[in-house]
Amino acid sequence: MYPAVNMSGIKLLSDARDLETLIFSMQSGNMLSMNIIKPTFLLNKDRVLRNIKRMADKAKRSGVRFRPHFKTHQSALIGEWFRAVGVDAITVSSVSMAEYFAEHGWQDMTIAFPINVREIDAINRLAERVTLHLLVESEESVHFLRQHLSNHVNVWIKIDTGYHRTGLAWDNCQGIVEVVRAVFQADPLVLRGLLTHAGQTYSARSSTRVREVHQETVSRMQAVRDTVQTQEEQVSLEISIGDTPGCSVVEQFDGVDEIRPGNFVFYDVTQLTIGSCLEEDVAVAVACPVVAKHEERLELVVYGGAVHLSKESVSVPSREKPIYGYLALPEAHGWGTKIPETFVVGLSQEHGIIHTQQSFFEKIRIGDIVVILPVHSCLTANLLRKYHTITGEVIELADLT
Amino acid sequence: MYPAVNMSGIKLLSDARDLETLIFSMQSGNMLSMNIIKPTFLLNKDRVLRNIKRMADKAKRSGVRFRPHFKTHQSALIGEWFRAVGVDAITVSSVSMAEYFAEHGWQDMTIAFPINVREIDAINRLAERVTLHLLVESEESVHFLRQHLSNHVNVWIKIDTGYHRTGLAWDNCQGIVEVVRAVFQADPLVLRGLLTHAGQTYSARSSTRVREVHQETVSRMQAVRDTVQTQEEQVSLEISIGDTPGCSVVEQFDGVDEIRPGNFVFYDVTQLTIGSCLEEDVAVAVACPVVAKHEERLELVVYGGAVHLSKESVSVPSREKPIYGYLALPEAHGWGTKIPETFVVGLSQEHGIIHTQQSFFEKIRIGDIVVILPVHSCLTANLLRKYHTITGEVIELADLT
Repeated sequence: MYPAVNMSGIKLLSDARDLETLIFSMQSGNMLSMNIIKPTFLLNKDRVLRNIKRMADKAKRSGVRFRPHFKTHQSALIGEWFRAVGVDAITVSSVSMAEYFAEHGWQDMTIAFPINVREIDAINRLAERVTLHLLVESEESVHFLRQHLSNHVNVWIKIDTGYHRTGLAWDNCQGIVEVVRAVFQADPLVLRGLLTHAGQTYSARSSTRVREVHQETVSRMQAVRDTVQTQEEQVSLEISIGDTPGCSVVEQFDGVDEIRPGNFVFYDVTQLTIGSCLEEDVAVAVACPVVAKHEERLELVVYGGAVHLSKESVSVPSREKPIYGYLALPEAHGWGTKIPETFVVGLSQEHGIIHTQQSFFEKIRIGDIVVILPVHSCLTANLLRKYHTITGEVIELADLT
Repeated sequence: MYPAVNMSGIKLLSDARDLETLIFSMQSGNMLSMNIIKPTFLLNKDRVLRNIKRMADKAKRSGVRFRPHFKTHQSALIGEWFRAVGVDAITVSSVSMAEYFAEHGWQDMTIAFPINVREIDAINRLAERVTLHLLVESEESVHFLRQHLSNHVNVWIKIDTGYHRTGLAWDNCQGIVEVVRAVFQADPLVLRGLLTHAGQTYSARSSTRVREVHQETVSRMQAVRDTVQTQEEQVSLEISIGDTPGCSVVEQFDGVDEIRPGNFVFYDVTQLTIGSCLEEDVAVAVACPVVAKHEERLELVVYGGAVHLSKESVSVPSREKPIYGYLALPEAHGWGTKIPETFVVGLSQEHGIIHTQQSFFEKIRIGDIVVILPVHSCLTANLLRKYHTITGEVIELADLT
């Protein structure tokens, strides 16, 4: 049978739904009227706004500073949606990203990455125009900054509370105190506090476990602060924490001064698997055309691969091997709930392989559009470079290359 | 101690090598004089030219058409290096990529991807200006093309010789014959032959095993051709194969008419692990600044993460968990051999975590540049968008977004 595609670009669902869908698709502001011909990054603006407002409200109720991480969306326009709920301080992951958001009017930013001494010239230029916060975790870096900074910058000591990626180990009191002293004595550096990224919450597989890790993280940070403030009486330290799982599952941010989550703006399959969001919070997805079907394996092949989704994978309870995404179908105002027993099981450069069950397999025809919920929305956004809202807006990401 | 970096951008290696390196770095056309301040994609042009020439020569000796896959480099300029050795037919993985290379003068191209019916308008425009080859694997797609093509195109039947990604199973004779008949009878379609991608060579871990898979692939393709030609006497079919491991390890392409390897232009850690190249064939690498050191774990943290390298990983014999790359040091004319017992063991969005041994750990200082050999050069190129040759040329990739 001829595939269910109208070549003017209107998506027709198969079977009895065709006529209804066609009528829907003639309306504007309708997902099904989008002329999707190749992998397209969809953004559900209502969900994004809701995710932002929920986190901003929670921070306000807790009396902590909300300094969202903008590495996830990398977009000046989406940044404005944060400004609309009162956000005026942000986090970024590179000097290039700091420059981009400075261009777009942001005046207070933390570069949440160990200082890259090779970028000192750009850092000095930035520090002239914005309130800049940098991370240090060694005396070497502090000495370097003291010698090369031409403006005052705020400095946070990066603490490793158990993730073991970067930072001074939280129980290395002597090491931490030495760096604190070095910062305190270095004239262009303004010591602000202790900062951690409790990335170990990403290994959790329940909100209960995330909550435990979060509590442990806060306790460890408080222990560090208390130790340092006891030894160095003139020092006063704030505490900044930042992972999306922790910030999503707790209702009240006790014992910290600042939160820096990023991924929550979109969420994704990883966060779903951890238990830090619900499916209706996932605000981005990739629409992909079906290009082949293999009944003997119950597999669909889509145009949508590693250059669109990234090769990030995640283990989910219902499948032995890690997956690269869930599948849904387009609907008038976005996409539906995920199809049961259906997973992205393989990705080549441009191909995506979907494994599904018989009844769904039979419904789908070559030329149909399916929607993939990505495993890691930050990496998918970084690859696709453009968001398409359901109402037809196209939002570009920063070009940081 | 102060990190070994001269802030004018000149890279100093540590210890006694400093002075020598400084002198080297003042010369032009020298890797060490490059002003590397953030993750930078390096291309060793001599190696690329050698990789191209070796494959082109082998194809010529074997009397087969060399139709290299350009998805790996995605660059018009690098395309010219192929033209210089007589290549005039290419392979691409998307309609967008075909358009880009058509803009740059390529007149004969195969889109090695199951036809995406939603791009029929672009396909028709392309078929007006170039000799276009498309892949089909179902009667539905053939009927669709017959109805919607406005120009003649060449058609290849995609055969699955064991990779199980796309294509008609090689032993599904009846199915293949039906598609062959449909193509043969469809007026705008010119039946050219059978095409396969024996991606199962990527599971091999020795050149002997790759050779076996290659022989099996060729035998299966010949069996399909013989069966079809016996049943359909008027049909004459060519055979096209295409994986880099297979094309790299065999010395003579017997029994096929065309080869379409792509990755061989750069190679990478995956190909090294398979045994399809030597370390001195790997022609691209990512230079990254060291931003932190953690002696208790013998880990270096570099500025260079998943948005630079991709999250592709590979299992190597010398390490239990999959790795994201090998490490080397910059040298005057490129980079040295890989550092023993040293691996990229983790990648976040911008961070790379290197695990190494004590003596190397001690040599490296914050601010030094290290060089990462990527696991999958196609995905790394796609992310970094720009090649920097050792002699200071900057080569841009196609913008296909």
